[in-house]
Amino acid sequence: MEVDDRPQTSPHAGVQSDNLTQHLAGLVCDSRLADIPEVVKHEGARALLNWIGCAIGGSSDATTNSAIATLQEFSGPPVATVLGRAERLDALSAAFVNGVSSAVHAFDDTHLPTVTHPTGPVAAALLALAETRFTSGCDLLHALVLGMEVECRLSNVLITPPAEGDERWLMTGLTGTIGAAVAAGRAMRLPSAEMVWAVGTAVQQVSGLREGHATMGHSFPIGHAARCGLFAALLAQRGFTGAQQAIEGPRGFAKMYAPRPCLEALTDGWGQTYEMLQNAFKPYPCGIVAHAAIDAALEVKRSCTLDVHSIHHVQLDVHPLAIALTGRPAPTNSFEVPYSMHHWVASALLFGAPDLRHRTDEAIRDPEVGRLRALVEARAKHGCARDEAFICVTMRDGTELRAHVPHARGSVERPLTDAELETKFRSQSEPIVGAEASQRLIDACWGLEHLQDGAVVPHAAALRVK
Amino acid sequence: MEVDDRPQTSPHAGVQSDNLTQHLAGLVCDSRLADIPEVVKHEGARALLNWIGCAIGGSSDATTNSAIATLQEFSGPPVATVLGRAERLDALSAAFVNGVSSAVHAFDDTHLPTVTHPTGPVAAALLALAETRFTSGCDLLHALVLGMEVECRLSNVLITPPAEGDERWLMTGLTGTIGAAVAAGRAMRLPSAEMVWAVGTAVQQVSGLREGHATMGHSFPIGHAARCGLFAALLAQRGFTGAQQAIEGPRGFAKMYAPRPCLEALTDGWGQTYEMLQNAFKPYPCGIVAHAAIDAALEVKRSCTLDVHSIHHVQLDVHPLAIALTGRPAPTNSFEVPYSMHHWVASALLFGAPDLRHRTDEAIRDPEVGRLRALVEARAKHGCARDEAFICVTMRDGTELRAHVPHARGSVERPLTDAELETKFRSQSEPIVGAEASQRLIDACWGLEHLQDGAVVPHAAALRVK
Repeated sequence: MEVDDRPQTSPHAGVQSDNLTQHLAGLVCDSRLADIPEVVKHEGARALLNWIGCAIGGSSDATTNSAIATLQEFSGPPVATVLGRAERLDALSAAFVNGVSSAVHAFDDTHLPTVTHPTGPVAAALLALAETRFTSGCDLLHALVLGMEVECRLSNVLITPPAEGDERWLMTGLTGTIGAAVAAGRAMRLPSAEMVWAVGTAVQQVSGLREGHATMGHSFPIGHAARCGLFAALLAQRGFTGAQQAIEGPRGFAKMYAPRPCLEALTDGWGQTYEMLQNAFKPYPCGIVAHAAIDAALEVKRSCTLDVHSIHHVQLDVHPLAIALTGRPAPTNSFEVPYSMHHWVASALLFGAPDLRHRTDEAIRDPEVGRLRALVEARAKHGCARDEAFICVTMRDGTELRAHVPHARGSVERPLTDAELETKFRSQSEPIVGAEASQRLIDACWGLEHLQDGAVVPHAAALRVK
Repeated sequence: MEVDDRPQTSPHAGVQSDNLTQHLAGLVCDSRLADIPEVVKHEGARALLNWIGCAIGGSSDATTNSAIATLQEFSGPPVATVLGRAERLDALSAAFVNGVSSAVHAFDDTHLPTVTHPTGPVAAALLALAETRFTSGCDLLHALVLGMEVECRLSNVLITPPAEGDERWLMTGLTGTIGAAVAAGRAMRLPSAEMVWAVGTAVQQVSGLREGHATMGHSFPIGHAARCGLFAALLAQRGFTGAQQAIEGPRGFAKMYAPRPCLEALTDGWGQTYEMLQNAFKPYPCGIVAHAAIDAALEVKRSCTLDVHSIHHVQLDVHPLAIALTGRPAPTNSFEVPYSMHHWVASALLFGAPDLRHRTDEAIRDPEVGRLRALVEARAKHGCARDEAFICVTMRDGTELRAHVPHARGSVERPLTDAELETKFRSQSEPIVGAEASQRLIDACWGLEHLQDGAVVPHAAALRVK
């Protein structure tokens, strides 16, 4: 642990608009795990558990297969685990593949105010790093929290009024690389000057174009951000210099991606408020804006003995964004289905709480699901919150079954419990690495701070070929 | 060679604003080397020769050392040459390092209308690829020309009025990745559908932030674009799908980087006009906007017996951009010196045509150069062209020596001859790989179309340890 005799200055002392990157580097390098509240550390552990489950859950997808097949030819010594797989790769390649894999099912976490998916780039970089540079469980947890915090705060810089950042950019692509670089740099204990270089090289790799949705490219940016962030930190350690004002400079990150960046969102209240507490975990493997409608359907199903064959019409009233992003009545393949509210509401009415089994090609082609999807009508409702939904199921005999969900499960107001997160984790992990390894991973995440060697975590997520 | 019995349709048949990426992929995949004019092919060979010289010239720089030291730990089987070095790396890593190395001295080429440096990303990707997938000299030259052409045309899409693209972006960072992907995809003979995916994945990696100038980060984007473009093509070959409208889509490349993209600049006149003919090669290793002033100084020096100790004042009148980018009277290190017109004019007056020896730390500290630098005054002149300059050297006795350069050497109007390019090449290559290998490289570039195996080129650029 660090000694405790440094002068206790305000974190804002000496911040100027022209030294923000240096200031951030100082805050990250000087941070002490002992100063981070338990609730924040626990949220970090929850984020890691959720993320590892998603990475294992996506590990046998065609997207992941393609990425591994491509990189095996170019991989260095295979020291880093590909989660849920028997193959190992070099740390940079593993960071990429694990990042991709974790996003395949759109089941990862979301910082809803900015629609950033904060854990993927940071965790994928850190787990791969832990297998090539010794990293204690303490350091892993600490770096994870700091990387996620920087990533969410950077997204706020671009989005918080009056920033006017263009929400058409993929925020995780823009800020994830920098979060991953900061996390990896912290785990490597880079001094502050090198941390500035790491941020500089990370900024030169940010990339946030959204075209690619509903293709394998959907999950590409998470892996790319993880690899690029880790690479930036590794280069900095080898003396590769970078911009001093990468974030705040006249042609820097903030000004190029937001006309009037809210720079103070990056470090204001640092150590007092934690933006990563605004991060939430999805109960269902689809677009988060469809979740309230699914919950409404589940509430109807729970409240009575529902004869689904007698349903005549399903009326949904939801936030306009839910229509914009998931208004897709007839998905045709597994890349489109995460963005079909109609599909998930139909699945929920038929089978109860939906999971990964309901996004396969078979589930999409299921005639009963298709029949019910066609009965679902979704309308934008003025004044409805992003995580709110109303449902009215009309039966053939004219009976109306109604439900109202003010906050979806998995929202910040109604978060998944630790037990629910474990259930979600097991649902993805057990079919692939088995019950025993899944339990070891759960224990490792909850006890992360006490693990001597953080590499235990990725090791436990490897597929053991019998 | 391909058979010649396909129907001869217009390249514009069926182009819609919503299938531009597919149209481009078709043009690239259907292109035949036999249809490309000799002057274009020769320009491709010139570009390659110039670029290899720059990569060898930068191969022992601290920037390159740092990149190699970082990647060696993570490199796969070392099949690809690092130009000018004894080390070998996997092809993706070599593409990165060679791209970085080629930009270290800011001696690479420039498509002046958009300030794109087109050869770096494309050539670095292709040479590395040629060492891991058999590529004939023909295919290498053909892919190089197509990649450069796509890159320059994409830059035009963002810059040609009314596009209003923001010139603060680093164009090579934005368009180089796509050019490299197209070139690598063509050399791998990807079918058109996979070429679309390669472009889609390339678009997800474009990154063009300029912060990083005057640090090692200056040369980072060239290597990054090369690696990312090659990776995109390799992924596509393994079935990694991507956006169908990566360039023209509503959240695609063109619209996100230019409010009113000039989409027709991408394919209009394809096969009839070649944008890569607007590419130019620098005679001096510094910012291209300082070149006319250097030429003016050289003209004064040539026109009389100049006693540099008797110079009282040096007046330069140049384009405003030359002041904005290279108005730096007192550079302090080798990262700043490319951007100091004062330094290069002083060096030219003292030593004649400047080369890499005049950008070392020793040259910057040379007291005689420093004394002369301090006598140089540069003014922006209204109506002066970007490649034009006026000089007036006033001697202590009041004599005035004047010169006017309407077009700098190395401009499109006054290009370096093949012999001058060879001299520039040798000045960078001979001190590192020796005269014999340098001659082999020159012969390989001029005879590229007749080389059975394109890998001969990178092989010849390796440093042979005696």
